[in-house]
Amino acid sequence: MAALLRGSRCLVGKCHNHVNAVQVSIRSMASKTQVGFIGLGNMGNPMAKNLIKHGYPVMVSDVFPESCKELQELGAQILDSPADVADKADRIITMLPSSPNVIDVYTGPNGILKKVKKGSLLIDSSTIDPAVSKEMAVATEKLGAVFMDAPVSGGVGAATSGKLTFMVGGLEEEFNAAKELLSCMGANVVYCGQVGTGQAAKICNNMLLAIGMIGTAETMNLGIRLGLDPKLLAKILNMSSGRCWSSDTYNPVPGVMEGVPAANNYQGGFGTTLMAKDLGLAQNTATNTKTPVPLGSLAHQIYRMMCARGYASKDFSSVFQFLREEEGQ
Amino acid sequence: MAALLRGSRCLVGKCHNHVNAVQVSIRSMASKTQVGFIGLGNMGNPMAKNLIKHGYPVMVSDVFPESCKELQELGAQILDSPADVADKADRIITMLPSSPNVIDVYTGPNGILKKVKKGSLLIDSSTIDPAVSKEMAVATEKLGAVFMDAPVSGGVGAATSGKLTFMVGGLEEEFNAAKELLSCMGANVVYCGQVGTGQAAKICNNMLLAIGMIGTAETMNLGIRLGLDPKLLAKILNMSSGRCWSSDTYNPVPGVMEGVPAANNYQGGFGTTLMAKDLGLAQNTATNTKTPVPLGSLAHQIYRMMCARGYASKDFSSVFQFLREEEGQ
Amino acid sequence: MAALLRGSRCLVGKCHNHVNAVQVSIRSMASKTQVGFIGLGNMGNPMAKNLIKHGYPVMVSDVFPESCKELQELGAQILDSPADVADKADRIITMLPSSPNVIDVYTGPNGILKKVKKGSLLIDSSTIDPAVSKEMAVATEKLGAVFMDAPVSGGVGAATSGKLTFMVGGLEEEFNAAKELLSCMGANVVYCGQVGTGQAAKICNNMLLAIGMIGTAETMNLGIRLGLDPKLLAKILNMSSGRCWSSDTYNPVPGVMEGVPAANNYQGGFGTTLMAKDLGLAQNTATNTKTPVPLGSLAHQIYRMMCARGYASKDFSSVFQFLREEEGQ
Amino acid sequence: MAALLRGSRCLVGKCHNHVNAVQVSIRSMASKTQVGFIGLGNMGNPMAKNLIKHGYPVMVSDVFPESCKELQELGAQILDSPADVADKADRIITMLPSSPNVIDVYTGPNGILKKVKKGSLLIDSSTIDPAVSKEMAVATEKLGAVFMDAPVSGGVGAATSGKLTFMVGGLEEEFNAAKELLSCMGANVVYCGQVGTGQAAKICNNMLLAIGMIGTAETMNLGIRLGLDPKLLAKILNMSSGRCWSSDTYNPVPGVMEGVPAANNYQGGFGTTLMAKDLGLAQNTATNTKTPVPLGSLAHQIYRMMCARGYASKDFSSVFQFLREEEGQ
Repeated sequence: MAALLRGSRCLVGKCHNHVNAVQVSIRSMASKTQVGFIGLGNMGNPMAKNLIKHGYPVMVSDVFPESCKELQELGAQILDSPADVADKADRIITMLPSSPNVIDVYTGPNGILKKVKKGSLLIDSSTIDPAVSKEMAVATEKLGAVFMDAPVSGGVGAATSGKLTFMVGGLEEEFNAAKELLSCMGANVVYCGQVGTGQAAKICNNMLLAIGMIGTAETMNLGIRLGLDPKLLAKILNMSSGRCWSSDTYNPVPGVMEGVPAANNYQGGFGTTLMAKDLGLAQNTATNTKTPVPLGSLAHQIYRMMCARGYASKDFSSVFQFLREEEGQ
Repeated sequence: MAALLRGSRCLVGKCHNHVNAVQVSIRSMASKTQVGFIGLGNMGNPMAKNLIKHGYPVMVSDVFPESCKELQELGAQILDSPADVADKADRIITMLPSSPNVIDVYTGPNGILKKVKKGSLLIDSSTIDPAVSKEMAVATEKLGAVFMDAPVSGGVGAATSGKLTFMVGGLEEEFNAAKELLSCMGANVVYCGQVGTGQAAKICNNMLLAIGMIGTAETMNLGIRLGLDPKLLAKILNMSSGRCWSSDTYNPVPGVMEGVPAANNYQGGFGTTLMAKDLGLAQNTATNTKTPVPLGSLAHQIYRMMCARGYASKDFSSVFQFLREEEGQ
Repeated sequence: MAALLRGSRCLVGKCHNHVNAVQVSIRSMASKTQVGFIGLGNMGNPMAKNLIKHGYPVMVSDVFPESCKELQELGAQILDSPADVADKADRIITMLPSSPNVIDVYTGPNGILKKVKKGSLLIDSSTIDPAVSKEMAVATEKLGAVFMDAPVSGGVGAATSGKLTFMVGGLEEEFNAAKELLSCMGANVVYCGQVGTGQAAKICNNMLLAIGMIGTAETMNLGIRLGLDPKLLAKILNMSSGRCWSSDTYNPVPGVMEGVPAANNYQGGFGTTLMAKDLGLAQNTATNTKTPVPLGSLAHQIYRMMCARGYASKDFSSVFQFLREEEGQ
Repeated sequence: MAALLRGSRCLVGKCHNHVNAVQVSIRSMASKTQVGFIGLGNMGNPMAKNLIKHGYPVMVSDVFPESCKELQELGAQILDSPADVADKADRIITMLPSSPNVIDVYTGPNGILKKVKKGSLLIDSSTIDPAVSKEMAVATEKLGAVFMDAPVSGGVGAATSGKLTFMVGGLEEEFNAAKELLSCMGANVVYCGQVGTGQAAKICNNMLLAIGMIGTAETMNLGIRLGLDPKLLAKILNMSSGRCWSSDTYNPVPGVMEGVPAANNYQGGFGTTLMAKDLGLAQNTATNTKTPVPLGSLAHQIYRMMCARGYASKDFSSVFQFLREEEGQ
């Protein structure tokens, strides 16, 4: 399918002036033409590798050119700027640290939108404010191209093994085109709704995760103080209504489970500072939509306090350690 | 086994004066002799019925004699006071609303301990402060009898169908005797450790449950405001790290699941006022042990606010409704 | 002083390209030339009147032209747009509801910056995100004019009587020029530092105010439940270390003080929805600067819950009522 | 006045059996007869000294006899137990660390009530749960004596200089007798109502103090991060609605004020662990009376976390330091 009809509905709900012109896509969905990848950090690097493994010719760009070397050895073409990538590829994936980076890579002086081709498919896998995703979509749509947000769940391990989960927001009729690419990098690709809902799903999940983790840490700590064996308590919770992912899959108490950061002095895993960032996004969206999130908000503050007290780079399950009495007290 | 050696170790750690005398139990563990049951409320009533169904001769007592009628028709013997029950039965189960009731039923002027026989087994299934359980155990031990705490998880439905979970604290060598009786009323009987640890496990579970429920309600509300379909959001959470019992088994959003209180205007289930009571116990034990429980504490306060605003008798998942905008706002 | 040197230093730290040209101000600080006023809501209306009372010729503009009528009768000239005001006046005060309005009035298609004259002094008295104030300052500075943020404390009453407090951020050498105007409308004009610090001071004060008010409401409610007379408790707090503005000047308990919203069914005063807005700003700035504000954050959430439960337009001291048991419970 | 009528009303609301007998007090209010003082810790020691300074013959007792030496040198008589003190003095003041100590000193095997004389006046200045004060009052009343709770505000300095504030609960007709003694040790003696209300007032004040202190610390920290000078910010808060005792009298930011713990590395003052204890009492009374105290509860948790992280013995204003970024982060 070489041609795509677009413009018959608006990307964002508030658009009242439909653009009725028929737009012709130049991108070739079924064949393995060039795919651009921008942002080759801890996550982007293994993701781009998986695209190459699946036979896609990949062209990459990063503000730190040395990040591209490894990909180059695997056959990727290195380009100077996002604009250059947009000039040559009509399918582009971006994986960037935060909202300002995304704004710059898309709308900056050397940004994608400077040279994006009509009909191009732009997929942003960064975790950012859904309001920014919507802005990028509006700007992209004006140029006749398509923007989708597709943040991931799963860390570097899942990125390496191609087992990420993608939560995708954007036009439903473009979902299959996005899924074709994302399936090379992930085990689950879930369509969430209009632009921004991918981010919304990601943010919601991580807020509930943070609450569950701190709740599990408090509960395990209290139980231990009351004389319960931690393994036994975890077992009881996991067969009862206290069960959650943090209690049964990622228990924060050293000695309860193998293969989790708690078993390795809270190294690896998902850093407290990253969780604090995601909770900041949750807080912003809650404030903007006037939604009360009392526990989510307190979870955010607790991770902020932890960052201030030296826990920034430890796994977020180290909240168990943070709440416990220090030795010698 | 008709005789039990007891007294060679103390029930509670702080006991320094070991009673070294050998005590002979008059209770007959293997045979189906009289079992006393005190407290025939919403939970105690179906529990006692299940004992009768399993062939035990049951003698009952309640401050409200009319509560006993139904049991009487099923063959139970009604007695005037806990003391009278203790005089005739050497295995007694109590199921009472709160700590003061337990103190009164055990140590009051007509309490069990007034006439308890040496070697008797007293099992308290009330949910109370573990410190009170320990006090009752010390007082019981002084009279040569055994006290165990065995609070339940599961509501009236589980009590009726005999599917409760019992969390049992007390002497390990008495656990089998307790389990024989409790198995008639529950599907799971878990040994938790010394006296009070049954309560500890119950309180810990319910604290984490409360945190998970409010967290799920906040998250679902935020996601809906951000444009996500609630069923889809629940599905995403349940396949991700946000998963918890409140999201996958007891979702608080009307329309997401069948057969939960949220599907029935938050009627039935576990009342907000009962959850607030359990969180008060958690708070007390945390304060007494100087354990920080920031989310557990805030969850307590939120359920307190809900009680003040008319939600006392609704299921505790109605926190979703409490956090949402009222109609007309 | 008719001429002002400017450009020798940058307004905001990130400016790397100093504009070294000497700019000549056309505004005449000492004489009473035209002053523009944009935003004639509940606060802006009495503020503009006070400028007229002090002899300034005033030209006004508002998105709702009918808001201008009263000012017109007092001699003010009505103009169609902020751009028109900027074309004719070299001192302009803006008083707008929120950040997006400020962005539009300054940088929109008919905004002030479309026609601002070099050397003009633009004072924004809206309460907004300090980051937006900084953006406006940068944009204004590029055009050779001066921007200062000067949010107010004090409500409609203080605006009417000219007793507002202005917290002013911007170039120190421009402070006197701003003070000349602001003194017509306020009793205190405080210089806070660089651009954005006026907003910072306002936001900080209101966050601490919100915390103190909820704290006072909780404390008074607890004391009453414990048997204390509310007037006596307030007296004790006010002579002790619990003393705060909310306990000694604006007590939230009906019957304790005269002349406060609590004495009038929480009508008038400072609406809960406005407090929630200011706490949202505090939350945003705290998130952006990675500052933990656990109580400020929880205060925000409590006011959000109150808005959801029908308290949006009541004075923010109605949190006392929100926390109390409803009648009939 | 040598004779006191008593028994015509009950001490605690729930008493239904009035003791109508006229009781004759043997204590001599006007003259300076023996006064007992039990508990000679950091606070009790200077308090007892002030009684001696005012000419009272004092007899003292403490579980650590060496605590009594200094008093002995000043002329106080040392006795072995609280019972001995009660045998010889008909006015007794107690100053003890916590509820269990009070229970022991009053109702223990060598407690005051073992030998208390009819008509004696027992004043407890400890800070404890008001429910315990009520229990002590009931037990004391049964023996024909009078119990009042009279906790203090002010630290060791105020105790030494005789400038404490006493908050007194008990029979109003006994207040003057209590005031006569307490005035030797304090500048303010405030009658609060029935037994327990002295404790209630103390607990309420300290809860609001804790909230105000954490709120001030958060606010000052946020303001500094936003570019405000801390002295200036404190000045602005103190002339505005954010004003509170923690901002204007005990500011937690080093450099803002002289003579406060913040100016001395948070040494001296009121220890975090003591504040956590008082907040635990506030939490207990709130839970028992089903009163929502969301900020008070979170303040409690924050001080608990601080105790766990090494702040136990620092002044409670060190929460400012706890919330700030550690050096090197």
